[in-house]
Amino acid sequence: MSATSDIIAAAPDRSRLDTLAAHGVWAPPLIPLDTALAPHRELCLAHLRWLLARGCHGIALFGTTSEANSFSLAERMALLEHVVHAGLAPERLMVGTGCCAVPDSIRLTRHALELGCKKMLMLPPFYYKSISDEGLYQSYSHVIEAVADAGLRIILYHFPKMSAVPISFELIERLLGAYPGIIAGVKDSSGDWAHTAALLERFPALTIFPGSETLLLEGLRAGGAGCLTAGANINPAGIRQVFDAWYRGTGEAQAAQAKASDLRRVLDQHALIPALKHVLAHHQAEPQWRAVRPPLVRFDEAMGEALIAELDARGFNLA
Amino acid sequence: MSATSDIIAAAPDRSRLDTLAAHGVWAPPLIPLDTALAPHRELCLAHLRWLLARGCHGIALFGTTSEANSFSLAERMALLEHVVHAGLAPERLMVGTGCCAVPDSIRLTRHALELGCKKMLMLPPFYYKSISDEGLYQSYSHVIEAVADAGLRIILYHFPKMSAVPISFELIERLLGAYPGIIAGVKDSSGDWAHTAALLERFPALTIFPGSETLLLEGLRAGGAGCLTAGANINPAGIRQVFDAWYRGTGEAQAAQAKASDLRRVLDQHALIPALKHVLAHHQAEPQWRAVRPPLVRFDEAMGEALIAELDARGFNLA
Repeated sequence: MSATSDIIAAAPDRSRLDTLAAHGVWAPPLIPLDTALAPHRELCLAHLRWLLARGCHGIALFGTTSEANSFSLAERMALLEHVVHAGLAPERLMVGTGCCAVPDSIRLTRHALELGCKKMLMLPPFYYKSISDEGLYQSYSHVIEAVADAGLRIILYHFPKMSAVPISFELIERLLGAYPGIIAGVKDSSGDWAHTAALLERFPALTIFPGSETLLLEGLRAGGAGCLTAGANINPAGIRQVFDAWYRGTGEAQAAQAKASDLRRVLDQHALIPALKHVLAHHQAEPQWRAVRPPLVRFDEAMGEALIAELDARGFNLA
Repeated sequence: MSATSDIIAAAPDRSRLDTLAAHGVWAPPLIPLDTALAPHRELCLAHLRWLLARGCHGIALFGTTSEANSFSLAERMALLEHVVHAGLAPERLMVGTGCCAVPDSIRLTRHALELGCKKMLMLPPFYYKSISDEGLYQSYSHVIEAVADAGLRIILYHFPKMSAVPISFELIERLLGAYPGIIAGVKDSSGDWAHTAALLERFPALTIFPGSETLLLEGLRAGGAGCLTAGANINPAGIRQVFDAWYRGTGEAQAAQAKASDLRRVLDQHALIPALKHVLAHHQAEPQWRAVRPPLVRFDEAMGEALIAELDARGFNLA
C-alpha cells in the first residue's frame, strides 16, 4: 500500500467521532501546589485555560497525573467547584471519581453531576487485588444506581500497572449490557497497543482513549477517540497537530506523530509527573510548579537541568 | 537440641514484651454490615467484645480484614467513636489510619488520638507504585509532624501483595532515626518468615507482628511481639493457646501451633474475608454476617457449606 492510498484509507469518519462521549486530545492536568502543598487555584486555572487555548479538546481532571488520590475528597470537590465557577465549560471536563470506597465514588460523581459535568473517568476500587469481575461489576453498579442520572457517562479507567486492578473485556461487556449509554468508554493506560486494538475491535461504539500520545495516530486509524495523555501538559499543540493532520487528511500526520512520540519517549525515561512539573516550572519561570504531594517527590534539580537541555537540543518549543 | 532444652531456651523474656507498644494476639476484626452494607454497629461491638473475651489481647480496627479502605472516612470515624463510647478501652485498640491521601491519614490519626487511641496501624499511600523511600518517608513524616503528639505509636503496615507498596528496611531505619518511640513496630504481612526474621534481627526494639498465626510461635521464639492476624476472628482462643503455652513454657506450644496453623491453612485456600464472614454467619446463625462491601463478593453458598463441613470434620470448635 502506497503512502497516498494509506492517507486516503485513513480519511476520518467525522460523523463517527461525533457519536462518541468525547474525542480528540484530552489532557489530564498536572495540579500545581502552593507552599503548603495545597492546590494552587490560580496557577491551576491558568494551566487549564492554557491547555484549552493550545488545542486540547478537553480536560480530564483528577486522574493519575493530577495526583488525585493524594488529595482529600474535600480538596477535589473544592478545586472542581473553583474551575467550573471560573467558567470552564463542564462539557469540556471529564472528572476522575473512582475511589477505593464506593461511597466516596458516589459522592464525587454526584458532586460533579451537580456542577454540570457528565463525563467521569472512573478507576475501579484499587486497594484489594485479584478482585473478581463480579466484585468490580458490583462496585460500578452501586455507583451508577446510587447517582441515578441518565446523563452520566463513564469512561472506565484501565491502568493495570498503577491501580493493579485491570478491567477485563468481560467486565466491560457486562457493564455495557446493563448500562448502555452510561458506560461510554475506556481509557486504556496499559501502554500495550495490542490491548487497545483488541478493545477497538470488540467495542467499536465505545470511546477508546489510549493513555499515551505515542498511540494517537495508530488509535485514530483503528477507530480510537484520540488520546488522553499526561504528555499533553507540556505538548498540547504538538499532539493536537497529529489529530488535526489526521482529521484533515493532509498527509502530515505521520511526521507530527513521530515528533510527538519523540518527546514522549524522552519523558518516559523519568518519573513522569515530577518531570512534567519541572518542565512547566522552567518554561513558566514559576518554581512553585515543581511541588508534588507525597508520596511523589520533586524532580531532582540536576536531572531537571539535563532534561531541559535534552528537550532544547531536540528543538522542542514548549513556550 | 532436645525438646526439653528447646522449651527451656524458649522461656520468654516477659520484661521484654512489656517494653513493646503491643504484644500478644491481636485481631483485625471483620466488620459486619447491615442490609444497606453500612457497618452494623451492634453486631460489630458484640464481635469485638467476643474477641477480647475469647483471649485477644487487642483489636486492630481498620486494617485489610476490616475492609477499611472500602469505607469513607466518616464511616470509619463514626464506628470508632461508637466502639470507644461503648466502653472498649483505647489501650486495647489499634487503629488503621494510613490512606492514599496524606490529609486523610492526618485526619484519621488525629481523630483516633482524640478518642484516646495511641496505636495506629499505618499503610503507606498505596495508589502510586514504585515509590521511593524518600517519598514514603515524607508521607509518614507529614502525618507525624501534623498530629504532633509524642504519645503516638505507629505500627508500619507492610503488605506488599495487597498494597503493592513495600516498606523497606532502609525506610524503617530512617523513620526510626527521626521519630524514635513514635515508630513503634511493623505488621509484616509478607507471609515470608525470612522477611520477619530479618526484621526481628535488625530491629530488636520494635514491635514486630507477623501477619499470620502460622508464624506466631516461630516469631515469639525469635523476639516477635505475637501476631496480628485475620484468623483470630474465628479462632481467638486457639491462637491465644499458642501464646499462653509459649509464655508459660508448658511445652504445649508446638501442638497448639500445629492446630492453629492447620485451621489457617484451610482458610488460606479461600478468599479470606468472605470465607471468615461465612464461618461467623454460620456459627452465630446470623446470615447478615455474610455481607461484604464491593469490590469483595459474598462467599459462595456451596463453597461455604463445604468449608463448614471441612472445619467440622477437622474438629474445630469455633463456638
